[in-house]
Amino acid sequence: MTEILVSEVGPRDGLQSIKAIMPTEAKKAWIAAEAAAGVREIEVGSFVPSSLLPQMADTAELVAFARTLPGLNVVALVPNAKGAARAVEAGVHGLSIPFSMSETHSLRNVRKDHPAMLAEIAEVARIAREAGAHFAVGLSTAFGCTIEGAVSEDAVVRLAVASAEAGALEFSLSDTTGYADPAQVRRLVRKVKAAVGADKLTTLHLHNTRGLGLANALAGLEEGITTLDSSLGGLGGCPYAPGASGNLVTEDLVLMLNAMGLKTGIDLEKLLAVRSILVEALPGEPLYGFTPDAGPMMDYAERIAR
Amino acid sequence: MTEILVSEVGPRDGLQSIKAIMPTEAKKAWIAAEAAAGVREIEVGSFVPSSLLPQMADTAELVAFARTLPGLNVVALVPNAKGAARAVEAGVHGLSIPFSMSETHSLRNVRKDHPAMLAEIAEVARIAREAGAHFAVGLSTAFGCTIEGAVSEDAVVRLAVASAEAGALEFSLSDTTGYADPAQVRRLVRKVKAAVGADKLTTLHLHNTRGLGLANALAGLEEGITTLDSSLGGLGGCPYAPGASGNLVTEDLVLMLNAMGLKTGIDLEKLLAVRSILVEALPGEPLYGFTPDAGPMMDYAERIAR
Repeated sequence: MTEILVSEVGPRDGLQSIKAIMPTEAKKAWIAAEAAAGVREIEVGSFVPSSLLPQMADTAELVAFARTLPGLNVVALVPNAKGAARAVEAGVHGLSIPFSMSETHSLRNVRKDHPAMLAEIAEVARIAREAGAHFAVGLSTAFGCTIEGAVSEDAVVRLAVASAEAGALEFSLSDTTGYADPAQVRRLVRKVKAAVGADKLTTLHLHNTRGLGLANALAGLEEGITTLDSSLGGLGGCPYAPGASGNLVTEDLVLMLNAMGLKTGIDLEKLLAVRSILVEALPGEPLYGFTPDAGPMMDYAERIAR
Repeated sequence: MTEILVSEVGPRDGLQSIKAIMPTEAKKAWIAAEAAAGVREIEVGSFVPSSLLPQMADTAELVAFARTLPGLNVVALVPNAKGAARAVEAGVHGLSIPFSMSETHSLRNVRKDHPAMLAEIAEVARIAREAGAHFAVGLSTAFGCTIEGAVSEDAVVRLAVASAEAGALEFSLSDTTGYADPAQVRRLVRKVKAAVGADKLTTLHLHNTRGLGLANALAGLEEGITTLDSSLGGLGGCPYAPGASGNLVTEDLVLMLNAMGLKTGIDLEKLLAVRSILVEALPGEPLYGFTPDAGPMMDYAERIAR
């Protein structure tokens, strides 16, 4: 049986793009409930200056809390070396830095061009290595950019290789803007795996902006992807990419993977119940997903027992 | 370049499940606008008694109208031989009969068990053959039933073979209930192709009840499926399968196929404009789809030129 890791990024990617600030206790309840439902990895927040993203001010506290949950891999996003130092101090198991393949997006998002980002990646890699933390580079806007348009696949490969030379041990391909199509996913996963090593590209971070999220996930699985980022209720998006709203919906993703006979370790019924925490803590915030309304198929139990 | 036929079923499957009756002139405008956008096949209605489905009372008039549109394949659904006779009299290019793989669903839907349906299929095949019309059997509830639950794959294969022996020349696999998952799609398409001949199973009819519609479509394409049914705005569903709402959304499907470099012949911009006909003629009716809100990717033109 193939095991697939569903990495919940809602507490980071979901929350960072909405206005309302979720109380820390509600975030803890969310994280604990997902872990209890069998989710094995959660990105609990990002170590950005809280002046920029007040939503993320409690990330260190959430890391400490999440570390008490047995079997949970606790990860956080860092924009730079300063954030990485805070992340390892807080005790993350792993950290990742987004590296925008679109230089225009990078300049607008973190005010760094590609050479400056590669220098930052080298420094973050050093900090992670010394702390014994897992470290990944998120190749963001890899499937296209809302400012530049098409992003060259050769450029993505070149920047992935440059990141590896700077010390990156693992990568994810990130469809920040919801531009990916399944043929492109297969092509780009193959190319990047060929360039940096098949075992170093494990993860896809997909958005569902045009409804193609799960089809893109399927294309990735067929190319050997084993980790998929998603967000409960499809909450969130990229605040710097206008129109790009909503990660893969964790509920629909888990239904699909479990029904296919892939092993996520996640109990769908328990997962669906977690949604009420979001509804209560974020009143009026739009949530997405089809499975929460339709429920699993009548023969769901038979499917997952295959 | 692989050509994929997007078969618009909204005027039949979409409209049959909603309460409001769309005026005939609006239906004609819809059909003409989709044909002008490059849609090459439209299921314009079904030949059921208008006492049962008043929405479909104008199907013969729509067939006659649609036949005037150059290059359009005009198809209709028939529940039985009586409907088939009306369909060929109206001048359809093709007709299809739904054959529910769940006998309980069949009894509840058309009050016929499997042997009675096979007799009906033989009669419809004869009528179509004599008229020179194309004829397909839609293997409905093939991926599961909201009443029976799991539907045995062996039963689907057996009933497909029996239909072929009764004179069916072509098949579609129909996820009437929105139960399909991508692994099941691949398995069942392979099994049915192996049993009836690869060239005889060309079509998938999918619903998006649990958000898996496009992923299922992708799985089908990878198994050699070349025709996909869909409905503009995801309108409709199956009135006899509670909870099963909404076909594949034509707009999102066309975006996916075109962006992947598959050839549908459909102009997405023109297709998106057709939606306004539904909005105007069916006020308050929920429409679905992500592409209508997000629009195509900025580099869409480059993708389709690949």
